[in-house]
Amino acid sequence: MEQRWVPGQDLVSEIEQELRFIGRIIRQKGREIHVNFQITPPQFEALMLIRDHGVLTMGELSSKMFLAYSTTTDLVDRLERHGLVERLRDPMDRRVVRLRVLDRGLSMIEQVLEARRDYLRGVLARMEPGKVPILADALKDLIAHIQ
Amino acid sequence: MEQRWVPGQDLVSEIEQELRFIGRIIRQKGREIHVNFQITPPQFEALMLIRDHGVLTMGELSSKMFLAYSTTTDLVDRLERHGLVERLRDPMDRRVVRLRVLDRGLSMIEQVLEARRDYLRGVLARMEPGKVPILADALKDLIAHIQ
Repeated sequence: MEQRWVPGQDLVSEIEQELRFIGRIIRQKGREIHVNFQITPPQFEALMLIRDHGVLTMGELSSKMFLAYSTTTDLVDRLERHGLVERLRDPMDRRVVRLRVLDRGLSMIEQVLEARRDYLRGVLARMEPGKVPILADALKDLIAHIQ
Repeated sequence: MEQRWVPGQDLVSEIEQELRFIGRIIRQKGREIHVNFQITPPQFEALMLIRDHGVLTMGELSSKMFLAYSTTTDLVDRLERHGLVERLRDPMDRRVVRLRVLDRGLSMIEQVLEARRDYLRGVLARMEPGKVPILADALKDLIAHIQ
């Protein structure tokens, strides 16, 4: 058996906690945009899922959100009322409802991601300039080893 | 005005995307544990919120989850049925229900975090050994500039 180097428990826990903490803080910074658009984080999650898949049926969205069909219907009602998504009935089977993100929804997603980037830019600007590319490279290296 | 270095748009976008991608992959690796305990990701999120706050009322949990009270009640019913949390009625005001995580719930959380660490350990073990502490330090440095 080949002897392999395995990172210590402490280092792994440290990196896992750091990644979790950073992710949470950055996500929170998009929240003020949610408020402007009068939607909640679960509604935003639904919006992102529909966008990422192009089109989703209500049933597919419900199972991807791990929420009851009725709860998902309420989330989508709100998104539709705010002009962020549209419901399309299948002409062959009127019981099937497909969801698609509208331009206003795409613009909202872009504003949330921009708010997150603005926050991150401010944090990175306080770091030593040389350290930022090292961070970016270290993250890229981690991702390269995920596959 | 002091001239400050500001990281370029590309570098900020790159780091934001990398952090988002890594966070998503790691979270997914805890999912198989959710299945073993027969709970869903939103139910796990509720469990973590109750644990992090020690005790939460149903109303507090509902507003922290950004979900309707009835949806939150359904999530908690499931957690209680699986012996992960308990409901405590306030002796002074029987309408107030407080939630507390039971030992089985704490153990479940620990197993999910352990599954995430196991996955991350495997990824880090494939990186060049010297690069892992560089990654940990770069993340620690970022966090130091968040405050």
